Amino acid sequence: MATDAEPAANGHQISKLDGKAPESTDYANYFCTYSFLFHQKDMLEDHKRTGAYYNAVMQNRRQFAGKVVLDVGTGSGILAIFAAKAGAAKVYAVEATSMAKHARALVEHNGLSHVVEVIQGTIETVEVPEKVDIIISEWMGYFLLRESMLDSVLVARNRFLKPGGALYPSHARMFFQPMRSNSSHQRTAEFQRSMEGWAEFTQEMRNYYDVSMDCLNDSFREEQKEYYMQTTAWADVHPGQLLGPAACFKEYDLATVTLEELAAPLQESFTMQVMDGGPVEGFVGYFDVHFRGSKENPTDFPVQLSTAPDPTGATHWGQQSFSLWPPVQCAPGDSIVGQISVTRKKNNHRLMEVEVSHQVMTQGSGQKAALRLNKYHIE
Amino acid sequence: MATDAEPAANGHQISKLDGKAPESTDYANYFCTYSFLFHQKDMLEDHKRTGAYYNAVMQNRRQFAGKVVLDVGTGSGILAIFAAKAGAAKVYAVEATSMAKHARALVEHNGLSHVVEVIQGTIETVEVPEKVDIIISEWMGYFLLRESMLDSVLVARNRFLKPGGALYPSHARMFFQPMRSNSSHQRTAEFQRSMEGWAEFTQEMRNYYDVSMDCLNDSFREEQKEYYMQTTAWADVHPGQLLGPAACFKEYDLATVTLEELAAPLQESFTMQVMDGGPVEGFVGYFDVHFRGSKENPTDFPVQLSTAPDPTGATHWGQQSFSLWPPVQCAPGDSIVGQISVTRKKNNHRLMEVEVSHQVMTQGSGQKAALRLNKYHIE
Repeated sequence: MATDAEPAANGHQISKLDGKAPESTDYANYFCTYSFLFHQKDMLEDHKRTGAYYNAVMQNRRQFAGKVVLDVGTGSGILAIFAAKAGAAKVYAVEATSMAKHARALVEHNGLSHVVEVIQGTIETVEVPEKVDIIISEWMGYFLLRESMLDSVLVARNRFLKPGGALYPSHARMFFQPMRSNSSHQRTAEFQRSMEGWAEFTQEMRNYYDVSMDCLNDSFREEQKEYYMQTTAWADVHPGQLLGPAACFKEYDLATVTLEELAAPLQESFTMQVMDGGPVEGFVGYFDVHFRGSKENPTDFPVQLSTAPDPTGATHWGQQSFSLWPPVQCAPGDSIVGQISVTRKKNNHRLMEVEVSHQVMTQGSGQKAALRLNKYHIE
Repeated sequence: MATDAEPAANGHQISKLDGKAPESTDYANYFCTYSFLFHQKDMLEDHKRTGAYYNAVMQNRRQFAGKVVLDVGTGSGILAIFAAKAGAAKVYAVEATSMAKHARALVEHNGLSHVVEVIQGTIETVEVPEKVDIIISEWMGYFLLRESMLDSVLVARNRFLKPGGALYPSHARMFFQPMRSNSSHQRTAEFQRSMEGWAEFTQEMRNYYDVSMDCLNDSFREEQKEYYMQTTAWADVHPGQLLGPAACFKEYDLATVTLEELAAPLQESFTMQVMDGGPVEGFVGYFDVHFRGSKENPTDFPVQLSTAPDPTGATHWGQQSFSLWPPVQCAPGDSIVGQISVTRKKNNHRLMEVEVSHQVMTQGSGQKAALRLNKYHIE
């Protein structure tokens, strides 16, 4: 009894959570990923990411000078170090995993122990000894919301941020954009190969052991269809694949969004113009975040971190590819109108279920084609 | 905040458990792997495995006819079905995961519902309504002991097996064998490349952000060394790579081994003759199991399932490769004598730590070279 897909050592592969795992499991698995320097390095050397945070802090030193800062999920401690370098009077750097000890070493090695205090624990349970002027955090997951770590930032905001204090980043947006992609073809072909493999397998089981497995055909098909056709994939989309402008379907103001709003399903409508016509073989989903400070304490130099398709290559988040099979046929100038819903998985609130209902609206006439509904898992 | 090694959908990749996860986490993660038909198919189509069980049951129908059988961890239900086909009067098939519903469907589809009763739950908690004559289970993990599922079989034995009842399999053995392998070279090279990558990374961090990461060099080296050099790897060793006969260092009689013995560290000595001389670049570890029935109810036709290196290819377990770097130099006829200890990881009893102390003993003279100690993780 062993599977070919065993846990790799050192966190080079990570967790698939069981639907029946208790909340505590989720935490344990979630955090373990971030306790390896290998992963910290991966994130740090994404210089679009690290550089955007560096710029957001160092180009706005006036906002940090003499302030009290809280870094939620500090990891290696890098954002806390930036804040200290920018002149913060005090930085509390909270980290749940054993990475905290490395953060402490890094802070000391860079001569910032008198400013940065690393606290190991979850933000939900630690005590920070004073209210803070700024909360900085790199909390974004795939398609923005995966991992649900924004919850922890809001808990920190509610517990520790002074009135008028600023969140870095301060805003986040989510996008959908129509694209051309042969991943839908590929995944369809892989799905078909997998089903052929199943057919051979059930034949063998009958021949060798006189056991008929046919009653599981549909269940296997469902399992494989979900894996190949209904699970979004990490993608580094080239802008040349895009068939029309992006539709921003959601913006979060981190100063005002509530935990209740995050816990509820996200339901938004969108309209995407398909400039170049179809076939539209997928939707690409991604996010950006903005560093604008707070209303009372705006940044001098707003900074943006975008994960949009980019000819120089993707951030470590890439984009999420939502395959469409069969592709959506439409003429140049037609639009795709629809609704997207993003729901946390019941049994693991860090993973997501997405439903996209959409239909083609003909340019000028406003006539709508048949409504299609696609379901996806963000795992 | 996202890692490139995200959980794949559908259990095509599985869990790395956190050191701090509670026991319940371990269970949740452990079992989730086995709740996908994809993985059941993987195991079922390992015909050395499935065929050995089939033969053990069907060539010993006399032992099964009219008997009450318990299948521990039935998965798809296949072993329960074999037992029923062999004439068992009643088969209880216990399965912790939602695979139980597929097992139930398969049993029904094959017309065996009047014999096989599928019970969903862990063997530690379910009630089986009567004592049984035979316990059958496919519980073996990598290097036999990984997963620690034998514990559950012994719990079943202690709770439900009649005196004189039989376990299928009844015996298990563990082996070590000296080999030639270029995986040690490869992994050493990969480790070095990884350290070069770290050096470039720390240089970048200094150049871009004026942050010195050097204080983490040793920690990163340790982390990577553990991953590349001290973690055993799945291997399909060709018998031509073997440099001498196998040393069987442990045999378990499942009728008598206790849970306490399994929980305690395994400590055994071994002597491996190196017929062809060195350099010995690794030890290959593997296991076999035997189906002999019980003393009171022996099989008519004993069956063996071996995972030893085989020119026709490995079972899905493969073998475990324990790299030696630098290789061990020895002349034809020399022996490697040593001690192996296998300990369950403190924080996840389904994973293992292995220590091998060994030295070359010169043929004839009995002189021993310097003692070496190697540590490994089985993840």
